[in-house]
Amino acid sequence: MDTRITNALVVTMDDAVGTSGGVGIVDDGAVGIKDGKIAYVGPTADCPAASETIDAAGCMVLPGLLNAHTHMSQTLIRGAAQDVPEIEWMNAALGPIANAMTESDRIAGARLGAIEAIRTGATTICEYTKDVGQYVESVYLPLGVRTVATEMINEISADRATNDPDTPYPFDRAQGHKELAQAESVFETYEENPLVTPMYGPQALDMVSIDLLTEIEQRSSETGRRIHMHVAQGQREARQIAARYGTNETTVSVLESHGLLSDRLIATHLHGATPDERAVLAEQSVRMIGCPSSIVAIDGIVPPLVEYRSHGGIAAIGTDQAPGPGGHNMLRELRTAALCSKAANTDPTALPAWDALKLVTIDAARVLGLDDHVGSLTVGKQADIITVDLESVGIAPTVSRPFHTAIPNLVYGASGMDVRDVFVNGTALLRDHEFVTIDSEKVIADAIDRATAVFDRAEDAWRAADSSVVTAVTDGYL
Amino acid sequence: MDTRITNALVVTMDDAVGTSGGVGIVDDGAVGIKDGKIAYVGPTADCPAASETIDAAGCMVLPGLLNAHTHMSQTLIRGAAQDVPEIEWMNAALGPIANAMTESDRIAGARLGAIEAIRTGATTICEYTKDVGQYVESVYLPLGVRTVATEMINEISADRATNDPDTPYPFDRAQGHKELAQAESVFETYEENPLVTPMYGPQALDMVSIDLLTEIEQRSSETGRRIHMHVAQGQREARQIAARYGTNETTVSVLESHGLLSDRLIATHLHGATPDERAVLAEQSVRMIGCPSSIVAIDGIVPPLVEYRSHGGIAAIGTDQAPGPGGHNMLRELRTAALCSKAANTDPTALPAWDALKLVTIDAARVLGLDDHVGSLTVGKQADIITVDLESVGIAPTVSRPFHTAIPNLVYGASGMDVRDVFVNGTALLRDHEFVTIDSEKVIADAIDRATAVFDRAEDAWRAADSSVVTAVTDGYL
Repeated sequence: MDTRITNALVVTMDDAVGTSGGVGIVDDGAVGIKDGKIAYVGPTADCPAASETIDAAGCMVLPGLLNAHTHMSQTLIRGAAQDVPEIEWMNAALGPIANAMTESDRIAGARLGAIEAIRTGATTICEYTKDVGQYVESVYLPLGVRTVATEMINEISADRATNDPDTPYPFDRAQGHKELAQAESVFETYEENPLVTPMYGPQALDMVSIDLLTEIEQRSSETGRRIHMHVAQGQREARQIAARYGTNETTVSVLESHGLLSDRLIATHLHGATPDERAVLAEQSVRMIGCPSSIVAIDGIVPPLVEYRSHGGIAAIGTDQAPGPGGHNMLRELRTAALCSKAANTDPTALPAWDALKLVTIDAARVLGLDDHVGSLTVGKQADIITVDLESVGIAPTVSRPFHTAIPNLVYGASGMDVRDVFVNGTALLRDHEFVTIDSEKVIADAIDRATAVFDRAEDAWRAADSSVVTAVTDGYL
Repeated sequence: MDTRITNALVVTMDDAVGTSGGVGIVDDGAVGIKDGKIAYVGPTADCPAASETIDAAGCMVLPGLLNAHTHMSQTLIRGAAQDVPEIEWMNAALGPIANAMTESDRIAGARLGAIEAIRTGATTICEYTKDVGQYVESVYLPLGVRTVATEMINEISADRATNDPDTPYPFDRAQGHKELAQAESVFETYEENPLVTPMYGPQALDMVSIDLLTEIEQRSSETGRRIHMHVAQGQREARQIAARYGTNETTVSVLESHGLLSDRLIATHLHGATPDERAVLAEQSVRMIGCPSSIVAIDGIVPPLVEYRSHGGIAAIGTDQAPGPGGHNMLRELRTAALCSKAANTDPTALPAWDALKLVTIDAARVLGLDDHVGSLTVGKQADIITVDLESVGIAPTVSRPFHTAIPNLVYGASGMDVRDVFVNGTALLRDHEFVTIDSEKVIADAIDRATAVFDRAEDAWRAADSSVVTAVTDGYL
């Protein structure tokens, strides 16, 4: 073997590993890596020799975490928009600042977001953006992180914001076809790349025509490629659907009646759907992604993760946007998901630690169609592996008898900074808390310079848009 | 001056500082320290010379954070009880493990909790326990952290757990008087100690007689000493009050009718009170403490912080218990408070970042009666000061124009590990992320050894109590 990680508490997230089922715990465990794949999982005592041995005593070893839905470029304008009414968020608070970003600013933002994600244990990032290939080339491949490259597709021009929410937005079919062609080129470019999985990203049902969506579904059903879409994300969408398809229609009813529900559809958000609709989606094996920090911050709503799972659905979580309280720390997002789910359900048993952990590992891999390759420490899968220091100040002490407190202590106690090592395909991206593939200080310094310039350029338009953030500034609060 | 901290974004939490009101921001600011007190707050350019200059370029300087309510000893059994029904939590899940702790285990637990708190920016810890003096001597004074030492007082024997919830617990008046005497001795011992503020800690209205409480109130009204009490914390308390005082009575009605409401009463929790009752408490200037992570985890309930403030009440937050998803990271608790409050109120504007920050600084000082001494960076107050690295991976980038994104980025982005320096009374407890007053690795190693032994000793009783954690272990999830 090339590398072995030894003497650790190994949590495989594979219920066939170990004797106990469940999350597949191996005490005093080791994980071996050969040619970028997992070659051994079991007791350290039985682990074959390797060229390199990494002692992980005092650590937990886990499958790398998956961030299933994010728009990383916005990390550059972190802090731009939060604590505002939902109606102000997109256009009055965020818009003027987001619009002041150049293409290279967006790349710099994604790079910053990606290092935050890797630093805190993510090994797969599902980027959702226009021109996603650019980000893959400039950010994700150089970093060496696994990427789900979702090319965002819509048919509406950039000035839609000014449109009446109750009149259907005019669709630009030529734009839609151009963007679909762009998505196809992403599939072609990365066909042979083991680190990149492209997806279709029709933005939302109020932003693409049913014809285009049907065309995408046709291609998807032929190839097995996934369709990743924002579904039922709020009032503006609901009003558009009613205006376009009839007052009794909803996003889910339209998708269903057009035969667009399948296990190739990944539906992000879903808080605007009804429980009955979500039950239909789950039954049709549609995958769900919830973004707790983001949607609580934008809408004051907790994603219906617990309910979706109760319908038998498979769910993952993502960090979505960083301008507000997002950030890209998947361990923190996990804690947020678990605590907010308990609060939303008035139920302390909702989303227990071990179940929450699935949202960022094996279930996330299932959602993204990557479960043959990642999501658990299983021999033959790609070696996407992290180690977490259990002797850090927020997690310690942990015990292994009569039960493994490391599992709740990780979910509820980790800061993210306790992640020690990160491997993707067996290659180290982080070793002993330090980045291997990138100069993180340079990335941060570049982001600070750029952000200063972006906010400067945005100032006049931002003041003119006059969101409640402007008032908070006048009052000396920001 | 002895020390000056320069070149920072200073957020004073004093609306009289700076030109803008609000949170009192000083750009390119400095804070000067002389004889343990704040001697200068203003532009770096105008800051007088000092024996030592600490360059805080790229940092935010803030008043040290206050953790207003915590039982630190339980940090030793972190992970013992969470994700269980409320009815199981105290007695079936936590009890058997908590009961296996010795006195020295509890001290070791408090020490671990305190270093987590200091590491993440707390400068005041309000410890709530029996024999609080022991913790002050063994943990808090050696560490050099400011302590609110609340001596817990109750009149019920340890076996109350087995009592019928609808029959008033028998009160042991002798025990009550002994514990009150103990509290008095804590007041005497620390009368001259600038780092220790004792308080009376009558545990809850179902655990002390109205006579004892009236006696405590009498002493408090003569001396101005504060009374810190769990108020309206759940069904068991409500049933006891109804059984003892009559079916129409509640904790708040009994406290009110006996003249026990005043600005010297600190009421922790309050989720079991009605909005009308909370309005009465706020009107009577009773102070509130909410513990978001703890109460969400135990009850699935978000503390009514937003509502209490809407009644004009002053509120703080605390980390409460660590056996479940507590921990003692006040920056994380701040984020949890803000996001959970948004979710509970379905309102993204609930508890905005700048307002949340008051909960752990100036408002917390008001709640604890310490606002003449700490809670803001104001000349003449004690030099309890922290610096936070704004160039860290979860917070950067920040800009200062057209507004200070550092404020939301701190509240929503900080991991706690980004705290760089911590000063209490002008003395450094943490410098450049390293502890000054304690060997933290030794504390953690000791806690791990002790926790292993505690859980071992507890195993039989814990299995016999048969909480749902036992089932989760059998199923391989823990």
